Amino acid sequence: MKALCHKNKKICIEEKPVPAPKETESLIKVTLAGVCNTDIEIVKGYMGFEGTLGHEFVGVVEKSSDTSLIGKRVVSDINCACGECETCRRGHPHHCPHREVIGIVKKDGAFATYITAPTKNLVVVPDTCPDQIAVFAEPVAAALEIQEQVKLKQDEAICVLGDGKLGLIIAMTLANAGFDVTLVGHHPERLSRLGQNMVNYATQALDQIFTTVIEATGNPQGLITAQKIVLPKGKIILNSTYHEGFNFNPALIVINEIEITGSRCGPIDKAVALLSSGEVDPSTLIDKTYPLSEGVQAIAKATEKGVLKVLLDTTQ
Amino acid sequence: MKALCHKNKKICIEEKPVPAPKETESLIKVTLAGVCNTDIEIVKGYMGFEGTLGHEFVGVVEKSSDTSLIGKRVVSDINCACGECETCRRGHPHHCPHREVIGIVKKDGAFATYITAPTKNLVVVPDTCPDQIAVFAEPVAAALEIQEQVKLKQDEAICVLGDGKLGLIIAMTLANAGFDVTLVGHHPERLSRLGQNMVNYATQALDQIFTTVIEATGNPQGLITAQKIVLPKGKIILNSTYHEGFNFNPALIVINEIEITGSRCGPIDKAVALLSSGEVDPSTLIDKTYPLSEGVQAIAKATEKGVLKVLLDTTQ
Repeated sequence: MKALCHKNKKICIEEKPVPAPKETESLIKVTLAGVCNTDIEIVKGYMGFEGTLGHEFVGVVEKSSDTSLIGKRVVSDINCACGECETCRRGHPHHCPHREVIGIVKKDGAFATYITAPTKNLVVVPDTCPDQIAVFAEPVAAALEIQEQVKLKQDEAICVLGDGKLGLIIAMTLANAGFDVTLVGHHPERLSRLGQNMVNYATQALDQIFTTVIEATGNPQGLITAQKIVLPKGKIILNSTYHEGFNFNPALIVINEIEITGSRCGPIDKAVALLSSGEVDPSTLIDKTYPLSEGVQAIAKATEKGVLKVLLDTTQ
Repeated sequence: MKALCHKNKKICIEEKPVPAPKETESLIKVTLAGVCNTDIEIVKGYMGFEGTLGHEFVGVVEKSSDTSLIGKRVVSDINCACGECETCRRGHPHHCPHREVIGIVKKDGAFATYITAPTKNLVVVPDTCPDQIAVFAEPVAAALEIQEQVKLKQDEAICVLGDGKLGLIIAMTLANAGFDVTLVGHHPERLSRLGQNMVNYATQALDQIFTTVIEATGNPQGLITAQKIVLPKGKIILNSTYHEGFNFNPALIVINEIEITGSRCGPIDKAVALLSSGEVDPSTLIDKTYPLSEGVQAIAKATEKGVLKVLLDTTQ
């Protein structure tokens, strides 16, 4: 089978054997996969991951000890937890210290014809939800995680910093949940990508008017901006990860007694339910779909300034 | 009167007129004042403050529109809020955007024979509490702020990073409140400074065993250590402020979904009550007391490695 692999800051299409699922895993034929900024960071060296890239995908189960899943379209939680350690028992499998993470830590990813994933991680996608929408389950779950972690009040002023892929999806999910959202970015034309979800838009954030600021710029400077514009005693949610650090002075965090919460993977089942309901449709973010055989060009395209979601058709 | 003043990264003793209190202020004859790391950061350029240094003090009211206070020993909340703005009305006077802060922002401090402070900021010190203990009201209030902000569980493992002045006072207050505290530092001999308050001590923090890590090293690297040693989904409390930034990569904050809370000034009335009860006695931290006339030497002494609390006898 074909796989888009990363090794030593280089990517190329390789011919690999179809992976053999472990007893607790299913074999999935990938049908569609999405390129995420994390993939681009990995190619820069983030997490030191080498292997098949890709963690946003939808596919069809071909082999599984749970025979009811065979032939079903599924998406997968990307965190493959041991299920037995102290952290798993405390109810935090996403943080299992022994975990593999699909396409990010120790486990081959979804930019391939086939992938294996823990059967317990799979969520069946209803027929009403096409692949082009289901492929967003992972980033939508990450966006929903914010509402799982932080108690947001319906009447508070929430700012989403950054109108890239993640910022737009976060803005969609918050607007859909009824929050008063202001999206700050440099691409006002992207408002049309939000579909029916209504948000305010600003090209510059005013100082100290937001009680909650969600940092989704994909740029380390975003945290510096966030700590300037959030109100004292306010909250910052951090969503982006980078390979490189940056010069940061947390004095304003201390002086203004700000609360910062890191936010990563979220509830994939809730994401599938939301996407299937049609209330949130991130397929408006798709800019181009490449065949897997042109995966190197797809990553190059996703790295271009101004490009939103790039997909890989893994059947070609 | 004498005052220890900072201007353009230089400090010197100046002769100044006794300040005239505004209608809402009291005039206080300072009797004892403490040197804080913030004073040292100010001399490096922090906050751009120029004027009389000092914000930890105890003194006797000489003039006040509240005549019941005259002759009373008092300490003062250092934040002088307008009391009228949106932030004050939301119940956060410590974060009033128009505030002056004694010895830090726009208001002369306590390293002087006299100081003025808003009458509403004053807390009377009971006779049972000597000056050498009452002078710690401000840093003890800052330590108590942690328990005001963050819900700590009695059975959780709390790490205080740093066995300097602030770390020791935080460890004292948490141990006194019944928490299981591990103090991490390089001066095990300082355990004796904690008096009757029992804490564990370690010269190196083990990875990921603490649900809460309180960063009080006074060193920007402390935050980097804290994010390494806190458990996933754990909490970091940030207490130190610095003039300079540092290279920081918040990836672990995001990956491990850590919550960081900045913590600054706290409830001065609760600090006075605690100090008066005798349950916490930070006077064990005093290394040397200088007359105000030797204030320059006092600051130099406080800057020396290994020195804990330096006081200024402002009557001399």
